[in-house]
Amino acid sequence: MIEIERKFLVNTLEFIDQSHKSNKITQGYLNSHPERTVRIRLKDEQAFITIKGKSNESGTSRLEWEKQIDYTEANQLINLCEDYVISKTRYLVTSGEHTFEVDVFHGDNEGLILAEIELTSEDEQFSKPSWLGQEVTGDLRYYNSYIANNPYKNW
Amino acid sequence: MIEIERKFLVNTLEFIDQSHKSNKITQGYLNSHPERTVRIRLKDEQAFITIKGKSNESGTSRLEWEKQIDYTEANQLINLCEDYVISKTRYLVTSGEHTFEVDVFHGDNEGLILAEIELTSEDEQFSKPSWLGQEVTGDLRYYNSYIANNPYKNW
Repeated sequence: MIEIERKFLVNTLEFIDQSHKSNKITQGYLNSHPERTVRIRLKDEQAFITIKGKSNESGTSRLEWEKQIDYTEANQLINLCEDYVISKTRYLVTSGEHTFEVDVFHGDNEGLILAEIELTSEDEQFSKPSWLGQEVTGDLRYYNSYIANNPYKNW
Repeated sequence: MIEIERKFLVNTLEFIDQSHKSNKITQGYLNSHPERTVRIRLKDEQAFITIKGKSNESGTSRLEWEKQIDYTEANQLINLCEDYVISKTRYLVTSGEHTFEVDVFHGDNEGLILAEIELTSEDEQFSKPSWLGQEVTGDLRYYNSYIANNPYKNW
């Protein structure tokens, strides 16, 4: 129930090809407060509700609770969400023993690409592929909950 | 998924006796905004997450979505909630073909008693027992989400 992850900017998409599994994600926030984020996510044909707590000081780890919910009901709940709904394509990119989730944002956030890696401990090592850009772990601006209220096109 | 209900103040507890089924309820809010309320409730040994949307103009009906969740996880989620956690005892009181939920608040809300009746349509008739006080349907102050941030002792 504690999620440990690190987040990076990505400046190219040249490393993505048809061999990478991808998911279409649409998500909104019933609360974008970073200490009690409540997210409704549609991921291809599935839907989830996810609650996240406050991050630790380094921004690496955070309480996360998630449940799959009915897709039609999730669509109704998305209508209750705050201002902006985020649309992105998530590519799964293997690197050594790890898998990066590379989120390519669409619509009001076109141009933003973020890569996340989930770790089993805060000091776990991993190889950094050449396409990985600046680390932004713990930077609240790159929380999807922040982006949902402050789309990238307005930055 | 649309909940239709009316709410009343209650000024006495003399009509309650041991024949009435009761539940102990503890609940907090991950969002108390009346257009996207997210509630975590412990009810005796069970736990639920409930999301409510904006009320209609009369305050009678409102989108409501609820799922049972793991009790231990719910306790962790309650720790993420906004300021106050509400504690109350709910008595189920039959009146004709309907059942009133009579909520007797404790702690910071001691002295507040509210009765709710769920209806199948906005104009459904029901008999009003003698102990039923002033109607407060649609009055935001009597939303539990409001009370959670403004406890009755401060009114």
